Amino acid sequence: MKKIILTGDRPSGALHLGHYVGSLKNRVQMQNEFQTYIIIANLQAMTDYFDRPEQIRENINSLVKDYIACGIDPNVSTIFVQSKVKALPIMTMYFMNLVSLARVRRNPTVKEELERKEFKNNVNCGFVCYPISQAADILAFDADIVPVGKDQKPMIEQTNEIVDSFNFLYKDDVFKKCKAVFGQTAKLMGIDGKAKASKSLGNAISLSDTEEILKQKVFSMYTDPMHLKVQDPGRVEGNMVFHYLDAFYDEVKTRELREHYEKGGLGDMVLKKLLFDVLQEFLEPIRQKRKNVTQDDIDGILFQGNKRANEKADSVLERMERSMKFD
Amino acid sequence: MKKIILTGDRPSGALHLGHYVGSLKNRVQMQNEFQTYIIIANLQAMTDYFDRPEQIRENINSLVKDYIACGIDPNVSTIFVQSKVKALPIMTMYFMNLVSLARVRRNPTVKEELERKEFKNNVNCGFVCYPISQAADILAFDADIVPVGKDQKPMIEQTNEIVDSFNFLYKDDVFKKCKAVFGQTAKLMGIDGKAKASKSLGNAISLSDTEEILKQKVFSMYTDPMHLKVQDPGRVEGNMVFHYLDAFYDEVKTRELREHYEKGGLGDMVLKKLLFDVLQEFLEPIRQKRKNVTQDDIDGILFQGNKRANEKADSVLERMERSMKFD
Repeated sequence: MKKIILTGDRPSGALHLGHYVGSLKNRVQMQNEFQTYIIIANLQAMTDYFDRPEQIRENINSLVKDYIACGIDPNVSTIFVQSKVKALPIMTMYFMNLVSLARVRRNPTVKEELERKEFKNNVNCGFVCYPISQAADILAFDADIVPVGKDQKPMIEQTNEIVDSFNFLYKDDVFKKCKAVFGQTAKLMGIDGKAKASKSLGNAISLSDTEEILKQKVFSMYTDPMHLKVQDPGRVEGNMVFHYLDAFYDEVKTRELREHYEKGGLGDMVLKKLLFDVLQEFLEPIRQKRKNVTQDDIDGILFQGNKRANEKADSVLERMERSMKFD
Repeated sequence: MKKIILTGDRPSGALHLGHYVGSLKNRVQMQNEFQTYIIIANLQAMTDYFDRPEQIRENINSLVKDYIACGIDPNVSTIFVQSKVKALPIMTMYFMNLVSLARVRRNPTVKEELERKEFKNNVNCGFVCYPISQAADILAFDADIVPVGKDQKPMIEQTNEIVDSFNFLYKDDVFKKCKAVFGQTAKLMGIDGKAKASKSLGNAISLSDTEEILKQKVFSMYTDPMHLKVQDPGRVEGNMVFHYLDAFYDEVKTRELREHYEKGGLGDMVLKKLLFDVLQEFLEPIRQKRKNVTQDDIDGILFQGNKRANEKADSVLERMERSMKFD
């Protein structure tokens, strides 16, 4: 039997090249080898977008378009919306009894987010409990593998603690532990070179960016501020043009360009023009496929995906409630 | 249109005379005047019985028997099990984003329970969030009226705060405020006279107690420890036999007995024998009706009740999600 993967995104912004390099590419490659569930985590997004649900709704549509445009096959991978799988919140509520408030507050990701968001004292209950909700997302699909960033490791640990508590309490092997798989690729940096590409920082190239916007972004990329004349030697470390060429251009040719740049005689404008062409060639077919995805397609994909996700999650909930004698 | 009442019980123990006096009696009287939903709050019970789910299951059956035996008509009142209404946990999750952790910890009932239970630092997330879950129970049925004890007032306040936040955020009159209605009757005390009747304190007379157990309990009731000889005057204040006669016996006759007792010449044994007869006469038909309720009856009642409750709660969830543009 195929191993099961649970992966997905918060519908809190457009997907960008960082998502492609970090996860979308892998999802496409792995979808035939593994049974893949892709969760559009709108309930989780609501924990901090609760005052902007209409954005979440738009982003759900946008996510589905991005998935299809990048090569996710909805007949192979199950794409579904979190709030449409009613087993998830009820599993969350059962699990909430197995996790202490102190434990969830010690979760480094929650802790860090709390500090970053500066809403410490005003933090809402939904946000504090989101690692538990995430555990339900994973366990409802019997996921063997959860591809995550290294910063998400504590979430997987929390999930596996719940597995232990549940199995111990209800004397049954109801759940199995899941395994975090960390991406091979380093994070894609933003065009400013300051932080990883992120929609909220405005330094990312979205999969849905137009040619015009792509051009603007590539030509505003951070390179080597000391590289003033073409004939001067340039630095490639921290130079975003090379960072993106590494991710999207031919390896051998990139190496040659790097040597040339370091020696001097290769101008930023030439390089940026090249990178623009490379990314344009990469994004244009995605844009075209994106354009062809109609609202009817999206509705159909989610209808089917939600149905399949509900069947699986309902069967797991049933197994879970049976072990608790709640059937 | 009939006003809607939401009432119910945690399936955490057998119902007793205190429940009868405090709520069951009213439910029976009001069930034709109001549209009544009776929730068997097993998810809520799980917040502190998570390690004993089989007890909860038994108690669900026992509750249904008690309801029917006391005169609740399942064709008129909707009796349902909380975990079987999937709209409730999802509403809870939406509401959890609208309530800060600080707010929920300030809830006097939660605060008090935390202190009573001495599990402060180890309190689980389910317990902390139970006022939010309770708000979902109320709002999922558009309840106008929630009969509660005075100590539950903060729960209703929390519910109405959520109504305000939700309606404010999503610009719609999705929810209306509910009204707490406090019982007219004073709480029934336990047979020890020390605290109100409570299953966990072992000082309550259960609706399902046998004649033998009833006799033992009545004859061990706390009266006036200074009333040693029949001819001595006795105290009726704090005397549990009079407390129970007040609740279950003829008012005029009880007044006469009280005067006689205070004057002297009326023995405890005579009074206890009378109270036993009164309670035996009250409980015997309940016991008989209880005995006639089969497991098939219970299953049928809950099947119908869950169905009706799901229809109502689903329609409210739909209205709610529409206002959030999540439909």
